[in-house]
Amino acid sequence: MKLPQVMFHIKEIKMKKAVVILSGGMDSTTLLYDLYNQGYDLEAISFNYDQKHQKELICATATCKKLGIKHKIIDLRILGQLAPSALTRENVKIPEGSYTNDSMKLTVVPNRNMVMLSLAASYAIGSDITDIFYGAHAGDHAIYPDCRIEFVEAMKTMFKLCDWKKINLNAPYLKIDKAEIARIGKKLNVDYNLTWTCYKGGKKACGKCGSCTERLEAFAKAGMKDPVQYK
Amino acid sequence: MKLPQVMFHIKEIKMKKAVVILSGGMDSTTLLYDLYNQGYDLEAISFNYDQKHQKELICATATCKKLGIKHKIIDLRILGQLAPSALTRENVKIPEGSYTNDSMKLTVVPNRNMVMLSLAASYAIGSDITDIFYGAHAGDHAIYPDCRIEFVEAMKTMFKLCDWKKINLNAPYLKIDKAEIARIGKKLNVDYNLTWTCYKGGKKACGKCGSCTERLEAFAKAGMKDPVQYK
Repeated sequence: MKLPQVMFHIKEIKMKKAVVILSGGMDSTTLLYDLYNQGYDLEAISFNYDQKHQKELICATATCKKLGIKHKIIDLRILGQLAPSALTRENVKIPEGSYTNDSMKLTVVPNRNMVMLSLAASYAIGSDITDIFYGAHAGDHAIYPDCRIEFVEAMKTMFKLCDWKKINLNAPYLKIDKAEIARIGKKLNVDYNLTWTCYKGGKKACGKCGSCTERLEAFAKAGMKDPVQYK
Repeated sequence: MKLPQVMFHIKEIKMKKAVVILSGGMDSTTLLYDLYNQGYDLEAISFNYDQKHQKELICATATCKKLGIKHKIIDLRILGQLAPSALTRENVKIPEGSYTNDSMKLTVVPNRNMVMLSLAASYAIGSDITDIFYGAHAGDHAIYPDCRIEFVEAMKTMFKLCDWKKINLNAPYLKIDKAEIARIGKKLNVDYNLTWTCYKGGKKACGKCGSCTERLEAFAKAGMKDPVQYK
């Protein structure tokens, strides 16, 4: 009688449910592969917040299809309408150069992460899932206030209080940089061709915006070739 | 030369900008009058989260029109679609009876307050406003996890971290009950005829749901007559 019980127990651990916030960029896609590889029973959610282009969302959809993961795109166009940013307004130009330049702050969508995380929590609570994962990492902090460690820690506290059941917010890449994420992806055989990082929505990535610059540096540091085509 | 300077200073204090989350119920409407009376330069935002009826939103619009306050209704129907609740699903019946009954938990829209507050913060940040007010009060705590004092305190911390500028979350009615709010409203001459509290969207308020029960008790305790018509 003992063996079936043990097997059931193992199955239960392996199939822990989780919601992953998937932008379609390299960080969250690596995280998806990482959790998939750990045996989580995953659902991915992405947000359409009126980004100037839909390339990331197309990639997110393709990755989920490839891995057989349930995927939901949440219509959050209201965020792009409520709060101006270079990522959502046609009349604000995407700045070029390094991510640490002050001009890159134009790409901050005000409070984007809190809005996305709180909707992810609504979905998780409604679906009886207690774990939410997102791919914030150390490289984001200089530009984005809502990728800082103290923001994520405060958000974790919030998630314990927002429902009668405790919700766990997990950001396992918070203390590592994009190069380290690329190294994890290499081990997991992540299909980076199905990720999009460039802020511009051209046929090929521009290679010049802060986002491209950081991605290229990460691949170089990790000794990897980026399969995405650049201008 | 001194007088104009002093006057300018007074004007500056009186015209402090703030965003108020206005449901169209009696708590947030009283709060709106309260801040209006204190001389704030106000903007009100309401949320359409696919409530079964639009009565509260109609009231919110009417109150803002009456006071001459800029009002924005944010399309948050995605919330009603993401997370089930008796307030948003036709197939979940509104429970009747006291607010403390366990069945009333069916009216919890998962994580509603965090979603609404975070979008309010996006709007405020994008509009260069640093103060946000909402009308959570002591009576809500038994049913709604996201009206608890510890939730609001954690949210205040979040608001200081979500942007490079600190955003202030204010919930001045957090420690008083609905009867006390009614007493404040009486002094401020709030037009409670332009508020809607009943969970059902009938021509007249039902007088039986938890929300009606609490409202009627509050008016009775405050020795006031509720101008809204009941069945």
